[in-house]
Amino acid sequence: MPLLFSKNLFLDLDRVRLLPGFLYRLVSKKRHLYKELTSLLGFPPGNFALYEIALSHRSSKEKFLESNERLEYLGDAILGAIVGDYLFKKYPYKTEGYLTEMRSKIVNRQQLNDIAIKMGLRKLTIYDKYNSFLKISQIFGNTLEALVGAVYLDRGYNKTQQFVHKRILMPYIDMELLESVEMNHKNKLYGWANKNGKVLEFELLEEQMDNGRRIFTVGAVVDGELICTGKAFNKKDASQIAAQQAIQQLGLAD
Amino acid sequence: MPLLFSKNLFLDLDRVRLLPGFLYRLVSKKRHLYKELTSLLGFPPGNFALYEIALSHRSSKEKFLESNERLEYLGDAILGAIVGDYLFKKYPYKTEGYLTEMRSKIVNRQQLNDIAIKMGLRKLTIYDKYNSFLKISQIFGNTLEALVGAVYLDRGYNKTQQFVHKRILMPYIDMELLESVEMNHKNKLYGWANKNGKVLEFELLEEQMDNGRRIFTVGAVVDGELICTGKAFNKKDASQIAAQQAIQQLGLAD
Repeated sequence: MPLLFSKNLFLDLDRVRLLPGFLYRLVSKKRHLYKELTSLLGFPPGNFALYEIALSHRSSKEKFLESNERLEYLGDAILGAIVGDYLFKKYPYKTEGYLTEMRSKIVNRQQLNDIAIKMGLRKLTIYDKYNSFLKISQIFGNTLEALVGAVYLDRGYNKTQQFVHKRILMPYIDMELLESVEMNHKNKLYGWANKNGKVLEFELLEEQMDNGRRIFTVGAVVDGELICTGKAFNKKDASQIAAQQAIQQLGLAD
Repeated sequence: MPLLFSKNLFLDLDRVRLLPGFLYRLVSKKRHLYKELTSLLGFPPGNFALYEIALSHRSSKEKFLESNERLEYLGDAILGAIVGDYLFKKYPYKTEGYLTEMRSKIVNRQQLNDIAIKMGLRKLTIYDKYNSFLKISQIFGNTLEALVGAVYLDRGYNKTQQFVHKRILMPYIDMELLESVEMNHKNKLYGWANKNGKVLEFELLEEQMDNGRRIFTVGAVVDGELICTGKAFNKKDASQIAAQQAIQQLGLAD
């Protein structure tokens, strides 16, 4: 079927009209996806096959398509660079610690998944729709990362940067709100401990020197048992990290 | 001193010759650094002040210079993207797990520090040279990351990509060697336990489901005490991660 798989030939309506019924329906589906993507991206996809891969979750039944995990790996790295650059320029007087924290507030799984759903990627992701677990999972954030990877391969870094700014950061990230949100994992963990009659303590386990800076290791201890540890340049951050890890480990993350 | 701080005016020899002695020496030092940088980068620095910041460790006595931590944050993200892209294209049939592991073999602190020293960045880094601890520390890898950040701001992504390929990956990374190096943190930790009469065990602490995939949490337990945990999609990787964390925490990393 060279017609289907060559570069965007399904756009050639004159030739598509000549196709037999089942092929015509398949091609129409592709034409529809192409239009949806064009509106979502703000430009027409160059290499359409790349975007099809980006939208394909492992659970997809269309086995002739590669799944999006490799593109997700690439997109994650590219998104990290673009958001890193954005914050570096937006906050010229903030420390690297602040920038790192802001970045993790933007590119964390929950946030990316929420953005992906708002962008309409739940509808476009190709996955096993009979698996009701997947419907409420965070695979759509992975689709978004894979999409960033596809844009990067298709159009290069600078165009990807524009896409991320215009279609992700501007419409969906409220920077002022994020600035004011304290990542308060400790409070959340204390709340859980209280409700479940557990004793929660944070213990300083270690103080090390690293390139002339002190690094603190703090452990989250529940009923005398060490659950998780966190490391940072100050005790407050270290205990927040330990609490965040513990929340993940105990399955308390929303 | 507008002459010194305006853009690379110290290159104007006719004007430099007119300077009084102490300024002439300062400017000569800058001219020397400019030449060293040109040879190291493979192109002349555009915005020289950026590169001076990239080379300045926190411990530097030259207090009028900003230190390189913000640029290190930026460079780390850019380097992650460039190396991510490089591996994605070099290994078209490898899984994202393999690519992630290869990347961490390339951009880990020890490796970056070794490369920085081979590139001559120990000599160029501006730091407190009376602090003998810093001399053997890993601050030069940080300089290298900051330098990548400076190149990115000065010349953009594509030029930075060329710089990283030609001046970092090609000369200093032996990909075939890296492919064959198993990250064997467990062996290392067992060696330490043996030598110090400790009992080391790896325990499966938890099995969770994440988007339809199983995630294993394995703990490194020394003399019955949980030291560190690692999470991964299989038990082997999870225990390697736990071992790696434990090596860091116990201060056994080289």
